[in-house]
Amino acid sequence: MNIEVVTIGTELLLGFTVDTNGVEIGQALAEAGVRVCRRTSVADQAEAIRDAVSAALGRTGAVLTTGGLGPTRDDITKKCLADLFGARLEFQEKVWQELLQRMAKYGRVPSESNRSQAEVPRGAIVLPNPLGTAPGIWLEGSRGFVIMLPGVPSEMRGLLINQVVPRLRARAGGSVIRSMTLRTTAIPESSLAELLGNIEKAIHPLTLAYLPGLEGVDLRVTAWETSPEIAADRLGAARRTIMERAGPHIYGEGEADLAALVLDRARQASQRIAVAESCTGGMIGERLTAVPGSSDAFVGGVIAYENAVKIRDLGVPAELIATHGAVSQPVVEAMVKGVASRFNTGLAMAVTGIAGPSGATADKPVGLVWYATMVRDKVESSRYVFPGPRENVRARATQATLFQLFRGLDGSEGLPA
Amino acid sequence: MNIEVVTIGTELLLGFTVDTNGVEIGQALAEAGVRVCRRTSVADQAEAIRDAVSAALGRTGAVLTTGGLGPTRDDITKKCLADLFGARLEFQEKVWQELLQRMAKYGRVPSESNRSQAEVPRGAIVLPNPLGTAPGIWLEGSRGFVIMLPGVPSEMRGLLINQVVPRLRARAGGSVIRSMTLRTTAIPESSLAELLGNIEKAIHPLTLAYLPGLEGVDLRVTAWETSPEIAADRLGAARRTIMERAGPHIYGEGEADLAALVLDRARQASQRIAVAESCTGGMIGERLTAVPGSSDAFVGGVIAYENAVKIRDLGVPAELIATHGAVSQPVVEAMVKGVASRFNTGLAMAVTGIAGPSGATADKPVGLVWYATMVRDKVESSRYVFPGPRENVRARATQATLFQLFRGLDGSEGLPA
Repeated sequence: MNIEVVTIGTELLLGFTVDTNGVEIGQALAEAGVRVCRRTSVADQAEAIRDAVSAALGRTGAVLTTGGLGPTRDDITKKCLADLFGARLEFQEKVWQELLQRMAKYGRVPSESNRSQAEVPRGAIVLPNPLGTAPGIWLEGSRGFVIMLPGVPSEMRGLLINQVVPRLRARAGGSVIRSMTLRTTAIPESSLAELLGNIEKAIHPLTLAYLPGLEGVDLRVTAWETSPEIAADRLGAARRTIMERAGPHIYGEGEADLAALVLDRARQASQRIAVAESCTGGMIGERLTAVPGSSDAFVGGVIAYENAVKIRDLGVPAELIATHGAVSQPVVEAMVKGVASRFNTGLAMAVTGIAGPSGATADKPVGLVWYATMVRDKVESSRYVFPGPRENVRARATQATLFQLFRGLDGSEGLPA
Repeated sequence: MNIEVVTIGTELLLGFTVDTNGVEIGQALAEAGVRVCRRTSVADQAEAIRDAVSAALGRTGAVLTTGGLGPTRDDITKKCLADLFGARLEFQEKVWQELLQRMAKYGRVPSESNRSQAEVPRGAIVLPNPLGTAPGIWLEGSRGFVIMLPGVPSEMRGLLINQVVPRLRARAGGSVIRSMTLRTTAIPESSLAELLGNIEKAIHPLTLAYLPGLEGVDLRVTAWETSPEIAADRLGAARRTIMERAGPHIYGEGEADLAALVLDRARQASQRIAVAESCTGGMIGERLTAVPGSSDAFVGGVIAYENAVKIRDLGVPAELIATHGAVSQPVVEAMVKGVASRFNTGLAMAVTGIAGPSGATADKPVGLVWYATMVRDKVESSRYVFPGPRENVRARATQATLFQLFRGLDGSEGLPA
C-alpha cells in the first residue's frame, strides 16, 4: 500500500523548522507495511494545500497531512480538505466538551478561536488527541482518504502511533517493509561500489542505497515483501552476499557506534584505553566518553595540541619533531607509546595531522593525518589524506583511528586493501 | 521569485534520514530574496523524479533538486532531467580532469563508475564542487531552469552558498526577506521569554522565533520588506530592543561560535588556554580545536576521566576526592589550578560531573556538573544540574564553561542573575 504525505506550514519552507515529523512518519508507516512514496511541503495557503492533496489522491488515493489544525488564522487545513471532499464542517459538542476538559486540566481558558477546533467534516472520524487541543481527522470519500494530524511533533507522534498505524495496518493486510543497514568505514563510496559489483542484481528484488556520511558509507538494504518471514529471509541472504564481498570494511549494523564497539572489544580483552590527540583535539576522547559506562575501559589522555605538550607530557623526543615534523610516522608512534606508558594502559590511540585550512607544506597537504594504535606492545601506524574541510578531516580521522584499533583488537592488522 | 525544491532519495521517504538540507535551502534562498513555495521528496525512481520536476516547472519554472548525483547505480537524477529537457549527456574531459585532480590529491584512484560523474547535459552550466566528486548542474530550457545539487549536506551547502545564491540573487531583483539571529546561552527558554516580555509587540511587524538547542536558545527575528534598507533599519531597532532586555545573555549573532569568541578574547588578552576534562571527555578541547587557527591560543589539556589521572596528572590531592567526591567544588578548583600550572597558561577550564545515565547518588543527581574557569590567578567555579540525556548534559556543560570564561575575560564574573 502506497501513501503520500503532505506537510503544511510556511515555516517548513523558509527553513525555520527541521522537518522531524517526516522521519517519524516514514518509519512508523514502514513498520505498518505502508510505503511513503512522496512527501510534499506547502505553505499555509488554501490553493496550494488543495492542489497538493488533490494531486496526491490522484496518484495513491491515500494521503496523510500534518499541520494547519490549530486555532489561529493560518490554520486552514480542515476547511480546505472538507471543501475538496465536498463535506460540510459541523460543530461537534462532544469534541468541544473534551477540549474544554483538557484545557481546564491545565488551567487554561478557551478562546473563541478554539471553537473552530471542534468543527469536523461531516462523516469524518475524529482521532482523539490527549496531548493537545486539535484532534486528528480521518476523512474518506470517493477519491480515497486523507488523514489530518497536527504538526506539533509530540501530538503528531501520539496520534500516528496510537490511532493511525493500527488502522492502516488493518487495511494494508500482509505486506511489510523491512530494512537493514550495514556500516562501513575507511573506504570511499566508489571503491565500495566496485567491491560490491552488480550487487543490485544479486539481491533483487531488494533495493540498496549508499548513504555516505562522516562516519563512513552506510549500506541500506530494503525489502518490500508480503510477509515478515520472506523479508527476513531475503535480508539475511543479502547480508551474506554483502559480507562476502565487503566484509572487512563493515564494522556493524543499524545504529552501531564504532566507539562503543571499540570499548566492548577492550573489555573483552581486559584492557584499558588512553588517547593522545593533536589535530583531533579531544574528539576521540569525546566519542569514547559519549558511550554510557565507558569509564571501565577508558582512562583518559592528553590533548597535545602544542608541540611542547607532545614533548613534555608524552615523552616525544624533541629531535624527532625537528627532523620529521609533528605530522610524521616517528612522532605519531612516539605519541602512542608515550601515552600508553604514562597512563599504563594496554591499548592506546594517537593522531597528528593538518586539519586545515592552513598549515600545509609542499609535501604535507591539508587533510594529511598520521594515526597510530597500540595493542599491548604492538604499534600500527597509518597515513591518509582525508578530503573535505577541517571538521570532516577531524571526524574522518577519528573514525579511521577507532577502526584501526577495532580491527587490531580482532587480530587483524592494517586497513583492508 | 518563487522556486520549488525536489529532494531525491528513497531514504528520505522511509525515515532513515532527517532532511536538514531543506532548512539550509529555505534560509539561503530567503536571503537571496527567493521564496521556496513547495518542497517535494521522491524516491530514486525515474518516473517519480521526472513527474515531480515537471509539475514543479509547470508551476514556477524554477526548480532546485538535491540528491542522486553520486557514482552509484541509484544515482539517476542527471539522466532523468537531461531527458526531461531533451538534452543529451556528454562526457566533459575538463570536468573529468578536475575530478581526477581532486581524487589524486587525496590519494584515491578513480573507478569506472566515477566517469559518469563527468557527464553533463548538453548546454548545462557546471557548478564546481571542491568538496566532492559530483559537480552541481544548472540546466535551462524553454520550460524554465533546474539546478541539480548533490545530497551530501556539506557539498550541497558549499554549492548553494557559493554558486547558486549569487546567481539567483542576480535574477531575483527587488523584494527581500532578511533575518537576524541573536544567540543566548545559560538561560532557559521560559526565563528568556519573561525577560523579553511583550517583545513581539515592540518589534512589530517583524516576527520573532525562539529556537532552543544544545548551545542555548537562539532568537531569530525576520523582516519581510520591500527594500534591504527598510529591512536593515527595522532589524537594527529590534536588535537594540532585545539587547536592552536580555543583553548579558547574548554572546553573539548569526552563526557565532562561542569557542571562537573565547579564543578571540584570549588572544586580545595575550593569554593561552588549557583544559582539564572529566565528564566532557575532550569535548571542550574538540570545540576549541574545531576553530581554524586555534593553535595560537590553545595549548592542550588532560582528559582526566579516571580519578587516578586527576591525582597524577593534575595534582588533585587524593584526600580531596576521598572527602568531597570527584564531582565537587574543591576538586574542580584543584583541577583548573592543576592544569593551568602544568601547562603554564594564564587561562584554564575544568569540568567534572555526572553525565548519566548511571553514577547518581542520594545528594548528587544525574546532570550535576561542577565547572571552573581561571583567568590569571582568579578561579571561578559553578554548580549546575543540566537537563536531558548524557549527550545533552555534556554539550550544555561545555557551553556553560565556555560562557563563564568568555564573561570572565570581559571582566564580568558569574552567570547573569
